[in-house]
Amino acid sequence: MSDGFCTECGGGCIQQIPDGDNRLRRVCTRCATIHYENPKNVVGCLLEWEGRVLLCKRAIEPRHGFWTLPAGFMENEESLMEGAAREAFEEATAKSDDLRLFAVYSLPRISQIYLMFAGQLRDGFAKANEETLEVGLFDEADIPWDTLAFPVVTETLTHYFKDRKQNGKPASTGVHYADIHSRPGAPLDIVRHPSIVDL
Amino acid sequence: MSDGFCTECGGGCIQQIPDGDNRLRRVCTRCATIHYENPKNVVGCLLEWEGRVLLCKRAIEPRHGFWTLPAGFMENEESLMEGAAREAFEEATAKSDDLRLFAVYSLPRISQIYLMFAGQLRDGFAKANEETLEVGLFDEADIPWDTLAFPVVTETLTHYFKDRKQNGKPASTGVHYADIHSRPGAPLDIVRHPSIVDL
Repeated sequence: MSDGFCTECGGGCIQQIPDGDNRLRRVCTRCATIHYENPKNVVGCLLEWEGRVLLCKRAIEPRHGFWTLPAGFMENEESLMEGAAREAFEEATAKSDDLRLFAVYSLPRISQIYLMFAGQLRDGFAKANEETLEVGLFDEADIPWDTLAFPVVTETLTHYFKDRKQNGKPASTGVHYADIHSRPGAPLDIVRHPSIVDL
Repeated sequence: MSDGFCTECGGGCIQQIPDGDNRLRRVCTRCATIHYENPKNVVGCLLEWEGRVLLCKRAIEPRHGFWTLPAGFMENEESLMEGAAREAFEEATAKSDDLRLFAVYSLPRISQIYLMFAGQLRDGFAKANEETLEVGLFDEADIPWDTLAFPVVTETLTHYFKDRKQNGKPASTGVHYADIHSRPGAPLDIVRHPSIVDL
């Protein structure tokens, strides 16, 4: 099956299983370069100010007009935490203090990994920009659960408030790991803390 | 600057900053497709059997002949934990039980993220294969610290034994997060638990 062009020589590529491999890869029919494709990381922040959590109403597709935590694709040559802080600034003009890794989610359906940091919103300041229609600081009781953009946002917030309740202070315990299988808007399909993988 | 070919149309690409962006990207001069490049995830396992840890002597470059934890690039459409278990099997013919996310490392120098799981080596069984010259189960006192393949391996093992000592049992506490800047074989340059990012 023809599948695009080679980044090295511009030749046509096909899907085939290279020698010594066990998966289909994009392979160039001219120069034999193998093009590997791997999951992408999304990094983001859950920022709190006086007990309230910063959310952004999306100005871009997918899920335009739905509420999200500031997050986006990690860039080359940055650390996870730098990426998370960058996204908070790009999406909500927000600066971050005391960030710590808080949750890691696999989304195998779309080959993405979410790495979420929790921290403090500096000076309680945030404002909308070209990626965001509106920003807001929400108490737990006011979270717009029905209009959250993605299952991963629902899961992150749910875990955060549960953790905060158990500890009586901003989330300060372990890192949450889960596999998220649901589509946006569909019932949640989440495997939390899986502990055994059979081969 | 000319920079390879477009996967969509086979046209020539150049590095330029697209409208509304602030970074150089590979952009096609014929069809204008923007080719984003993002960090890759490496997933792996620290597997224990009767207090000893499984290491593999690498049969491939880089760092041929040095000892490592089983780990490799994550594939599309798998979860982090599935990937970690797959790598243990591919590199050491090892099956994994009770895996839990144990450490997350940013390696911005090479745009990689390591996500390491800790667990039990099923039945204490492992054996070498085409990616591995030799496998071994090591007590803490016998770890070949001077011939470990990568700084991330040294850091994972160091953290694991420290954690185990503090808890008096196989590592069972929080997830370790650090940024690793050192090259293989060079003095360690690691920022552990960074907590503030200035923008």
